[in-house]
Amino acid sequence: MLMVEIDPDKKKPLYEQIYEEIKRQIQVGTLPEKTKLPSARALAKRLEISRNTVDLAYGQLTAEGYIESRPRSGYYVCMVEDLAALDIQVETEEIDPEPKKEEMPYDFSPSGTEMEQFPYQVWRKLLKEVMINDNSELFQKGDAQGDLGLRKAIMYYLRQSRGVKVHCDQIILGAGMENLLFLLRQTFGTKQIVGVENPVYTNAYGILKELGFGVRPISMDQNGMKIDNLRKSDADLAYVTPAHQYPTGIVMPAGRRGQLLRWAKEKEGRYIIEDDYDSEFRYYGKPIPALQGTDHHEKVIYIGTFSRVIAPAIRVSYMVLPPKLLVKYRENVTAFSCSVSRIDQAVLTLFLSEGHFERHLNRMRNIYKEKHDLLLHCIRQFMNGADISGQGAGVHVMIDFHIRQNEQFERELRKQGVVIYPLSFYYMEGKPKEEKYILGFTRMKKKDMIEGTRIIGNVLSTIK
Amino acid sequence: MLMVEIDPDKKKPLYEQIYEEIKRQIQVGTLPEKTKLPSARALAKRLEISRNTVDLAYGQLTAEGYIESRPRSGYYVCMVEDLAALDIQVETEEIDPEPKKEEMPYDFSPSGTEMEQFPYQVWRKLLKEVMINDNSELFQKGDAQGDLGLRKAIMYYLRQSRGVKVHCDQIILGAGMENLLFLLRQTFGTKQIVGVENPVYTNAYGILKELGFGVRPISMDQNGMKIDNLRKSDADLAYVTPAHQYPTGIVMPAGRRGQLLRWAKEKEGRYIIEDDYDSEFRYYGKPIPALQGTDHHEKVIYIGTFSRVIAPAIRVSYMVLPPKLLVKYRENVTAFSCSVSRIDQAVLTLFLSEGHFERHLNRMRNIYKEKHDLLLHCIRQFMNGADISGQGAGVHVMIDFHIRQNEQFERELRKQGVVIYPLSFYYMEGKPKEEKYILGFTRMKKKDMIEGTRIIGNVLSTIK
Repeated sequence: MLMVEIDPDKKKPLYEQIYEEIKRQIQVGTLPEKTKLPSARALAKRLEISRNTVDLAYGQLTAEGYIESRPRSGYYVCMVEDLAALDIQVETEEIDPEPKKEEMPYDFSPSGTEMEQFPYQVWRKLLKEVMINDNSELFQKGDAQGDLGLRKAIMYYLRQSRGVKVHCDQIILGAGMENLLFLLRQTFGTKQIVGVENPVYTNAYGILKELGFGVRPISMDQNGMKIDNLRKSDADLAYVTPAHQYPTGIVMPAGRRGQLLRWAKEKEGRYIIEDDYDSEFRYYGKPIPALQGTDHHEKVIYIGTFSRVIAPAIRVSYMVLPPKLLVKYRENVTAFSCSVSRIDQAVLTLFLSEGHFERHLNRMRNIYKEKHDLLLHCIRQFMNGADISGQGAGVHVMIDFHIRQNEQFERELRKQGVVIYPLSFYYMEGKPKEEKYILGFTRMKKKDMIEGTRIIGNVLSTIK
Repeated sequence: MLMVEIDPDKKKPLYEQIYEEIKRQIQVGTLPEKTKLPSARALAKRLEISRNTVDLAYGQLTAEGYIESRPRSGYYVCMVEDLAALDIQVETEEIDPEPKKEEMPYDFSPSGTEMEQFPYQVWRKLLKEVMINDNSELFQKGDAQGDLGLRKAIMYYLRQSRGVKVHCDQIILGAGMENLLFLLRQTFGTKQIVGVENPVYTNAYGILKELGFGVRPISMDQNGMKIDNLRKSDADLAYVTPAHQYPTGIVMPAGRRGQLLRWAKEKEGRYIIEDDYDSEFRYYGKPIPALQGTDHHEKVIYIGTFSRVIAPAIRVSYMVLPPKLLVKYRENVTAFSCSVSRIDQAVLTLFLSEGHFERHLNRMRNIYKEKHDLLLHCIRQFMNGADISGQGAGVHVMIDFHIRQNEQFERELRKQGVVIYPLSFYYMEGKPKEEKYILGFTRMKKKDMIEGTRIIGNVLSTIK
């Protein structure tokens, strides 16, 4: 005999009260498997409610598989295994939040962007423009490689500013370099071994590792990656930053570029990944041309990003695939849509095509140049005998303080709120012969830069 | 003897003319390795220009590694191997564009979204709100799991509407399901074998395959995936759509859910991936609760998306990880930022928290319900003897026409501009005993639906 109590004064609809009570009884076993339920008509009569209300409750229970209707017989309880405690609320235990990084007042980090310079007004205006018409096409699924308009704008930019030989069909957009390297892995299909510069851009190294690439650190000399060592390794890909090596700041000279291209040409399937991460920032002379532009055998995969120049949250990176790899990409990568927001794509397209990007870039170049020059000035002023390298470009320099008590030095700096980045941190194998330090200036204010370098100078003088 | 001609009337700066000419001569071999260049002073005098101009040119050539300065001796040409044709412009050959799909007038596709219903005005208003203050924090790098505010809004939604047991720390956002499945693969680290329903949601199948999961199609009966067959396979993961199986529309009943949960409990490392892809659309009765909400052993990975309800370009999908897997995720996935645009995240946060989503959802549910009811009505009206299944939810139904001349049938429909989707297309192994068809109604206008079903009826009557 089914016992169901209902309360017409409760807020909950009657049919839900019936549904929940029967469900509960099935779950706890009061109504065992194969029990016949009263007919909807009978139950309705007993509860003095409309037949329709019971039908609704029985319908939901049937839909969820708690009861079943047998033709010309009625409703029966189904076998519901292992769900005894089905709807009992269990509080999910509090999960430890990830530890926050402590902010230091004088952090010479080479990453990030000077956010005060973000072209907020322009971005807002362009967003409005993009949304002004009932442009609902914008909310449909876009092209997997990225919107054609944006790819064209990037094509023109790369041809003009970087000497990259590119057709817009070769461009693939992704939300950050990690996304592009993922697509590259999918394109190859099989496990690839990548030679990387040692010391290396640790982010790229981490991404390659996590993506399951085999990663081989290749040692460098003053011209960049040693091609002999690359050749001795089992790598078929070489990840390099020829315009401004990260972190040493070395510009790979024409001769070494030629050797690298020859290495790639020697064997089918070899490719160079050129990460042109900060080529926009060169403060004296013309920009260093991209390696890709001098390649005649379709051996260079070119990668660049807007995150560094515009803002970290504008996660639009681009990759130029050699035609042969493009064919492979289209064969092997079919299930992945473009990871960049279409609204961000639309705004960026206008940002590029209406000349805002060029203006912004020129402004950023001036701002970073001023900071760069100030940093060099401060180093010469406060740090006696420090040797600077990798200057003239990018957003960091490397400094050799010629000291041996590095741990004590770093500890003392931290105490006084200064963070600089030891070169050894960027070594994935071995150690540098002499410890040097990376000092970046993207996010640092000028007065903090002066104060920070002054502190470094003071600490240096107590140590030497 | 270095021959350099300059033309002061050219638009190009003099130093660039000198730089380019010397570079060219080095590349073509006119200036071989180790050639000594004239001193800057001497060349300046000869060309009758300022010394500074030549210094600039030599500086750039040095930076790019074409020449080197030897102390107390002068500038010499470097060894530049293999770059003979370095800067010769090569036109990238035109690349074949990908073939476009032909649009058919009566396409009963189950994918996409009714775009006329996209809440354009609200979205624009919220975008404006998000950008109204100098909210430059929005353009900094965000949380790798997604912005906390949005994760909280999703947490409340999932708790209330889907009965999911979730803390916001367990939520990970990604640009589309493919991104989440990618993160899942990275979380596991090793190759996983996934049992999938057969027939299956082909997109998910394709993504799992391309991501390198081992994929095992598991046959189904009228209650969904057969757990015995799952148990016989080597799968440790089961990908299922319990609320509304894709494509058959089966609701997995409580009993089968219990069996599935028991299978997962039997072995350490087993997990169920619950894709709750269209649970928002149920037209009669209460929504079917999520499987995740009935799991007491942290065995269910819950996945959902906003793309289907809001718009395909709003690529925000979410995954709820069981606590144990969350720990693994944080250990194994460190190099990947959140793939969702922060602006999209900010707008969606307001869309959810200000109640727009609920209103939009209710509107869409009504619109789809009308279309759903109309489709059923038309099928009964025009297609004599057709059996419908999987109705009452989602954006498609399955129809058995009880015919054998399927190829002829489909061909004739195509001729008349109608596309419907054979069930066999969704089989990754074997074939259905009887061919059935999927008819979706997301993007179809009502008048086209009437006309399309009328055509199907006519073709049916000529075939039978």
